[in-house]
Amino acid sequence: MAGWQFPGIAHGADYYPEQWLDRPEILEADLEMMVKARVNLVTLGVFAWAMEEPEEGVFRFDWLRERLDALHARGIRVLLATPSGARPNWLAEKYPEVQRVGEDRRRNLPGMRMNHCYTSPVYRRLTQRIDTELARRFARHPAVVGWHISNEYHGECHCPLCQEAFRGWLQRRYGTLERLNAAWWTGFWSKHYTDWRQIASPSSLGERALPALRVDWLRFVTDQTRDFMSMEVEAVRPFNPVLPVTTNMIGRLIEIDTPRFRDLLDVAALDIYPEWGSGDDAAVADAAAMEHDLTRCLLDKPYLLLETTPSMTNWQAVGQPKRPGMHMLCAMQAIAHGADAFMMFQWRKARGGFEKFHGAVVSHDGRDDTRVFREVAETGARLARLGELKGSVTHAQAALIFDWNNRWAIGACKGPREGIDPDGEALAHYRALAALGIDVDVIDSEHGLDDYRLVCAPMLYMLKSGVAERLERFVCGGGTLLMTCFSALTDESDLCFDTGAPGPLRKLLGLRVEELDTLYPHQRNRVRFAPDGPLGGMEAAECDFWCEILHAETAETAAVYESDYYRGMPAVTRNRFGDGEAWYLGTRLGLDALRKVHASLSARAGIALQASGLSKGVRVHCREKDGVRYLFLLNFGDEPGNATIPPCVNLETGQPAGGMMVVPARQALVFRQAAFHARD
Amino acid sequence: MAGWQFPGIAHGADYYPEQWLDRPEILEADLEMMVKARVNLVTLGVFAWAMEEPEEGVFRFDWLRERLDALHARGIRVLLATPSGARPNWLAEKYPEVQRVGEDRRRNLPGMRMNHCYTSPVYRRLTQRIDTELARRFARHPAVVGWHISNEYHGECHCPLCQEAFRGWLQRRYGTLERLNAAWWTGFWSKHYTDWRQIASPSSLGERALPALRVDWLRFVTDQTRDFMSMEVEAVRPFNPVLPVTTNMIGRLIEIDTPRFRDLLDVAALDIYPEWGSGDDAAVADAAAMEHDLTRCLLDKPYLLLETTPSMTNWQAVGQPKRPGMHMLCAMQAIAHGADAFMMFQWRKARGGFEKFHGAVVSHDGRDDTRVFREVAETGARLARLGELKGSVTHAQAALIFDWNNRWAIGACKGPREGIDPDGEALAHYRALAALGIDVDVIDSEHGLDDYRLVCAPMLYMLKSGVAERLERFVCGGGTLLMTCFSALTDESDLCFDTGAPGPLRKLLGLRVEELDTLYPHQRNRVRFAPDGPLGGMEAAECDFWCEILHAETAETAAVYESDYYRGMPAVTRNRFGDGEAWYLGTRLGLDALRKVHASLSARAGIALQASGLSKGVRVHCREKDGVRYLFLLNFGDEPGNATIPPCVNLETGQPAGGMMVVPARQALVFRQAAFHARD
Amino acid sequence: MAGWQFPGIAHGADYYPEQWLDRPEILEADLEMMVKARVNLVTLGVFAWAMEEPEEGVFRFDWLRERLDALHARGIRVLLATPSGARPNWLAEKYPEVQRVGEDRRRNLPGMRMNHCYTSPVYRRLTQRIDTELARRFARHPAVVGWHISNEYHGECHCPLCQEAFRGWLQRRYGTLERLNAAWWTGFWSKHYTDWRQIASPSSLGERALPALRVDWLRFVTDQTRDFMSMEVEAVRPFNPVLPVTTNMIGRLIEIDTPRFRDLLDVAALDIYPEWGSGDDAAVADAAAMEHDLTRCLLDKPYLLLETTPSMTNWQAVGQPKRPGMHMLCAMQAIAHGADAFMMFQWRKARGGFEKFHGAVVSHDGRDDTRVFREVAETGARLARLGELKGSVTHAQAALIFDWNNRWAIGACKGPREGIDPDGEALAHYRALAALGIDVDVIDSEHGLDDYRLVCAPMLYMLKSGVAERLERFVCGGGTLLMTCFSALTDESDLCFDTGAPGPLRKLLGLRVEELDTLYPHQRNRVRFAPDGPLGGMEAAECDFWCEILHAETAETAAVYESDYYRGMPAVTRNRFGDGEAWYLGTRLGLDALRKVHASLSARAGIALQASGLSKGVRVHCREKDGVRYLFLLNFGDEPGNATIPPCVNLETGQPAGGMMVVPARQALVFRQAAFHARD
Repeated sequence: MAGWQFPGIAHGADYYPEQWLDRPEILEADLEMMVKARVNLVTLGVFAWAMEEPEEGVFRFDWLRERLDALHARGIRVLLATPSGARPNWLAEKYPEVQRVGEDRRRNLPGMRMNHCYTSPVYRRLTQRIDTELARRFARHPAVVGWHISNEYHGECHCPLCQEAFRGWLQRRYGTLERLNAAWWTGFWSKHYTDWRQIASPSSLGERALPALRVDWLRFVTDQTRDFMSMEVEAVRPFNPVLPVTTNMIGRLIEIDTPRFRDLLDVAALDIYPEWGSGDDAAVADAAAMEHDLTRCLLDKPYLLLETTPSMTNWQAVGQPKRPGMHMLCAMQAIAHGADAFMMFQWRKARGGFEKFHGAVVSHDGRDDTRVFREVAETGARLARLGELKGSVTHAQAALIFDWNNRWAIGACKGPREGIDPDGEALAHYRALAALGIDVDVIDSEHGLDDYRLVCAPMLYMLKSGVAERLERFVCGGGTLLMTCFSALTDESDLCFDTGAPGPLRKLLGLRVEELDTLYPHQRNRVRFAPDGPLGGMEAAECDFWCEILHAETAETAAVYESDYYRGMPAVTRNRFGDGEAWYLGTRLGLDALRKVHASLSARAGIALQASGLSKGVRVHCREKDGVRYLFLLNFGDEPGNATIPPCVNLETGQPAGGMMVVPARQALVFRQAAFHARD
Repeated sequence: MAGWQFPGIAHGADYYPEQWLDRPEILEADLEMMVKARVNLVTLGVFAWAMEEPEEGVFRFDWLRERLDALHARGIRVLLATPSGARPNWLAEKYPEVQRVGEDRRRNLPGMRMNHCYTSPVYRRLTQRIDTELARRFARHPAVVGWHISNEYHGECHCPLCQEAFRGWLQRRYGTLERLNAAWWTGFWSKHYTDWRQIASPSSLGERALPALRVDWLRFVTDQTRDFMSMEVEAVRPFNPVLPVTTNMIGRLIEIDTPRFRDLLDVAALDIYPEWGSGDDAAVADAAAMEHDLTRCLLDKPYLLLETTPSMTNWQAVGQPKRPGMHMLCAMQAIAHGADAFMMFQWRKARGGFEKFHGAVVSHDGRDDTRVFREVAETGARLARLGELKGSVTHAQAALIFDWNNRWAIGACKGPREGIDPDGEALAHYRALAALGIDVDVIDSEHGLDDYRLVCAPMLYMLKSGVAERLERFVCGGGTLLMTCFSALTDESDLCFDTGAPGPLRKLLGLRVEELDTLYPHQRNRVRFAPDGPLGGMEAAECDFWCEILHAETAETAAVYESDYYRGMPAVTRNRFGDGEAWYLGTRLGLDALRKVHASLSARAGIALQASGLSKGVRVHCREKDGVRYLFLLNFGDEPGNATIPPCVNLETGQPAGGMMVVPARQALVFRQAAFHARD
Repeated sequence: MAGWQFPGIAHGADYYPEQWLDRPEILEADLEMMVKARVNLVTLGVFAWAMEEPEEGVFRFDWLRERLDALHARGIRVLLATPSGARPNWLAEKYPEVQRVGEDRRRNLPGMRMNHCYTSPVYRRLTQRIDTELARRFARHPAVVGWHISNEYHGECHCPLCQEAFRGWLQRRYGTLERLNAAWWTGFWSKHYTDWRQIASPSSLGERALPALRVDWLRFVTDQTRDFMSMEVEAVRPFNPVLPVTTNMIGRLIEIDTPRFRDLLDVAALDIYPEWGSGDDAAVADAAAMEHDLTRCLLDKPYLLLETTPSMTNWQAVGQPKRPGMHMLCAMQAIAHGADAFMMFQWRKARGGFEKFHGAVVSHDGRDDTRVFREVAETGARLARLGELKGSVTHAQAALIFDWNNRWAIGACKGPREGIDPDGEALAHYRALAALGIDVDVIDSEHGLDDYRLVCAPMLYMLKSGVAERLERFVCGGGTLLMTCFSALTDESDLCFDTGAPGPLRKLLGLRVEELDTLYPHQRNRVRFAPDGPLGGMEAAECDFWCEILHAETAETAAVYESDYYRGMPAVTRNRFGDGEAWYLGTRLGLDALRKVHASLSARAGIALQASGLSKGVRVHCREKDGVRYLFLLNFGDEPGNATIPPCVNLETGQPAGGMMVVPARQALVFRQAAFHARD
């Protein structure tokens, strides 16, 4: 089986030599500067289709072979990309069917990128051919260490071919229209389908009021995209079966159910562009961290960070350059979360085009005496010294359920109010755990739970089949579960449970929900914690947005509402179930209160903290390998920060360490604990 | 002639048993709970077309007959709906012409509801057939007490059939292109039409700069909608000529000139969804009240409230549940304004679909021990006790002119500034009167004025033909008229009067308007009342938005502007005309000042108040029947409120009452005055 | 050669008698009131096509001849318009190809105005014919003093005819696809074109990510529009070669490169609608002034102000009437900047249509005893007294470069941040100079620089070919140049210079730019001026939005940043070059600091001020003729303002003047200096 065999931590960038083939002195300078910057891996060939196949069936790979050879000669390895991310103009001109059709049923004109119909037989055939030609030539080139399949798959197409494929997908899913009608509740508004042909994708011009249709459509879109990728993988795989395959994913992108790509990947990969400086950098770091964890949990092993900017982007509202030190800190964050590669977009700035002002290691002036180049080179040097971390793994004891079907189903809801934000809710819980120094796995609802002591499933509105049973088993076996408002309302078809919320979790949570009150932006309530309850001692805290009116059945009340007509009724509950505890939070709390709740729950759950006394902005993470634990302290703040850690040694200096450590602003420290007994 | 013969006040909900036909235990539970909730009327069949005619020409009504029988057996009556509000999928698939075309000339795809082309002969034919089949079977079913024609008619279609119909409508209206060209002032921008075919509906892709075209288009849309409804009425009527007909209207909806439906209705009906909690509930209540009054004035007799939520909606920005007591108060508000039915959307929440989180009497869990069910049942019980109110009428002495042609014409104007809001202006005057405890008729400009002492015609920009004469006659005969800024500028064709504003009302108002100053949001002016003028004693008040520069001719100046270049010029005037007075307010005042103006005018006009000393949030209304007057005190505030009323008895307790009464927060009291002499 | 031969200052309005042909008493009243208002010129025939050619090939000009004769009889001259600004309905109906296609490839429906395809052979043919018919009849009518070609040319069409013309334009520009591919940097994202047919205009449905395509498209649009105008000029010119030609332009309109119309114009003309009252009227006045200067600099001689409202518009957010005095002040502003005509839109308000509430000299009521009429008449009388100013010219010593290619290129950029506003930047520098009392020429980057002492080229992102050389020559010869952040990044093809910024200006400016930092809205930096540097003595000032990190090479540092990682690095520099100085401002300063910078630079550059000690809101301008200088003091403030001027006489009173003068609020004074030696 193919696996990521790279020696040490990979460091490099997307490289587009095809833009400079008429400037050999620049190509040469690139190589020299790469060595200077400690680049050991570059991604080649993303968007090179027009260079590789300038007209249909005419292939030109000499330039690529030359670049591979030259890179190889310098000891730089290559992640080779299939070029399907951008079509050549001749292709779109000749075969208009490859262009996507929007939800409003208008077909795109040629242009842009990453906007192909994944159903189109023509596009599949031509992609397969260029992939095959590429693989035939280079799958065994000594520089090539893996496949980078296409680029940031996403988007949806509503063309007639996709409509037909969607209907086929529905036929396979439901078998009969009767079952589909039942699942989609078409008795409402006379929506009964009497022929498969009546079904079409959601559209602002047509059906936009059938949530189950939208959820199934997005499931189909993921499956169709996955199927396209599978075709690409099969095109390149035969030419070197041990070459690992990956594709660069956009962490929390809404429309593609990333975990469904698991079995196509030998190694997972992430593109990430945090907006440092936009506000509190610790908050920005946590949002990024969540995407790192999500990527790691796809395969539960080290992954690749394939794109991040060395300085700024051109496409964010404010494309601010990273402040000094931030680039190195980003690299350390990636490694701390389990990445084995830290790659940038891009090596050299294009002179023209949409992204000509996107940051790069080398700017238009081709200089290597810039701040950006210097920081990149320093980062490369440091990563080179951290090679032993390669292959070490994360053993999180806490998990956060972040599920695409659930996000889609909530997004497909009309109401009961505006602004429902499952991602924001997930991030709030993630941040509460991160601030406590707890490593978190970010998993979908089909992921196993056996490894965890604490599982947080915020706003798990849709319970896919099997999830209720898995959660019960987890708690029964001693786990601690935290669920929150607007959860367990619908089944996998988005049908509301006819027992009301929390449907099949009523026994586990020990309660039922009578009403959901929603608050206007000018309204607030407060929760008061029962002094002798399981969260006794916590201060009353403000809550807003919505408040569920709960009836505790077997659950104990940990907190009650302070005002309104449900004053005194439970707002937070705890239900003992088997050997574990199932908690429920019926309203939205601020970050401070959430952190206190998680501090209490994680302590009860027996989660051992690797560090304590973290200053605001300081985060701690662990990786483990061969009985050794690596401890990372990252400080995203503007001021030096503290953390208290167990006795260990500084991995880079070899100095003994432990106790209260000071982490300078925007810096990272790495420690090694040798006398460590791995959990499993 | 058909009339609403229901015994007592109707109480019930929209009921969709077709969603639960495979769950007989639920259908049975529904009946039991309806009895518990004191439901005596349900609306059946809205959106049931797909169940009634699963394929073209195949009819299935057994399920409906069973439900009618079962309801009848429990003593529950039925308002039976024609199902044209939602098309079956087979219909849209087979006959694409039934789908509306947008103003951008794109035809809808199948989906949604209430989006059919009202011109389409196919849609008319199929609607007529299903209506006929329905009526043939059930028009004489003992449970059926009336027809609910379709659902919330609205919207416009720009398809070729509608374009052709529009051109025909214009030919009938204008006879010759010459007359149309003159009316539309096509000498501007070379817009002269030389062939009827050149005319098309307004479009963002085409003509959007011809206000008269837009106004005529909206007139046509109303007429076409009305014609469609007329076809439906004629389809069902023959099967039981005494069964009354109604349709549920959306009060102030802009695109349909509701009063034009008068002669199709045996009883008027309203759907209403106030956003309680969004701000000041008294303001929310007044906005709702205005819609109640508007609905009552369609036929000048009791009407039906056909839809309101028992708890929350799913489609408002914040779908907040009604606070305890509010549901009962809403019911009392409806009755106080003249409703003889209080019906809810909906009986039971759907498990799926667009509105699955819309409030209902029974939620997904099917329980009757909820707060919502309890409040509904209490309301039903109270309405049952108030049966004698049925058929009593409102005799308002004040009227507010609220005219669709006028709203359209203002909306079609480009300028002279943004934010011109005739509805907001109407509501402000309505609220000023409501706060004084004055019952108000909300009428269009064609409604008779003989019954009123005070008529308020705010921002009556377009004077349809005959209106000037009617207003003159009203004042001449002793009435008091109040008009305001931006009035009497154009005739029925939206042509500016070539004598300037106020055109034919110059003699009645005794003034002319030279200029309209508009104020930026940061600008204000003030009006100062002449101490010895007709509003002497009123404090100076801020004004904003715009200020007309008036030349009083025969009018007296009641107030002048305090600043700017028109300082000292008239801002408020009064003109004695015949036996009455015509007032003019040349600027926009705040609500407090407006209330004082109305207090003064209504006192001069001799309007007798039924109550005095109303606390903020308390409203008073009267209904009369057989020499008895019923007095309602409603308190929309969060605190107990007061009102002083004449001697009477509490209708529900039988206790003597009168003098200063305390109305608890969010409650309503009903009194009876027996020794009352009806006005006419 | 044709030239503007009007005797004295023209005063008048757009006049649309075609709307009133059935009202002869109104036409007669118009003439009488025009005389009263001192109107000596009207614009006739704009939008009269439907009246002139009611069906294809049928011409009706009698009404026009009658109006021309009648006006002539009263001594009123006529600027005669070709009617191509609005199509008759028969034309759009018969020839759909004349209707524009939007960037989304949807063709307009008939309607609106100024939305024709300039490529359409049909539209060209029919325009040419109506123009010819018009010119044949009236080019030698004694009342006619010039041609007003069409109306406010602007907009773009994406129809197949335009696509074809665009491809032809590109073929002429680039010759080969290879050169086009190189210029557009199509190596990025596989955008290599292999056939001309693959190229299409930018579209939200297609290519929207190729900045060079967008810039070339806008160049094409200007050229195509210019070509259309050229066709119209050639249609009318032969019938009277000495009749001057103009077209009314919309000053800073983005999509048309106004200076490219230079050689079609005998006299330049401007339409302008400042939003007086919207904020600080001095700021509004400066924005208007910049458009006046831009129009004057098209031909470097007196121009015509062809449209402004006498009171209010109907299409602005708040169409506020001008306050008393403002209309006269506007007229004086126009004259002060070099206009020889002050014309209004419009003479009389239309009774219907889109602009029926647009201000006019005569309102719907036809009265001449209004404030608006009175102020117009007073303005007319004053202009009649100022006839000697006619033909006098402006000799500005400072110039501001305002270049369309540059604006387009910046607009086509993706990033590096949002909100980049070259127009706002230009206006800020313009205002700084205006507040110092310096007359400014507003020129494009191809305009000669020999006449100036100071040239300000803010945000000159794109350096068209030849510009670098011209700037070098200017400074070398003793000029003072000021450039600012985000400049000199790309060449004429929008390719980034491969030496980085400032590309070919590195020697002239004596620096290079390493990085561009962008600041979030909540962030600020400050610049500190070196005490012994060339701006020593200036107080530290706040800067925001972005900060370039500069390396001064031969330049001196005038100011440094106070904070962030580039603290202490240069923010403002000065480079001596030949006999002049090249300044660079690497960040964005507030208006106060900018004014101080310009005060210092203009003093160094030896610019003589015509007045000093200007109060806020007071502006000074000069015109010169025959050795006489006319000095204007304009006060846009609400309070009287001061200015100190040299000895002279008040042109209108003949009184000696000089020293500190008081200008009343919203008034203008004009002085004459006889003993003046013209600069050249």
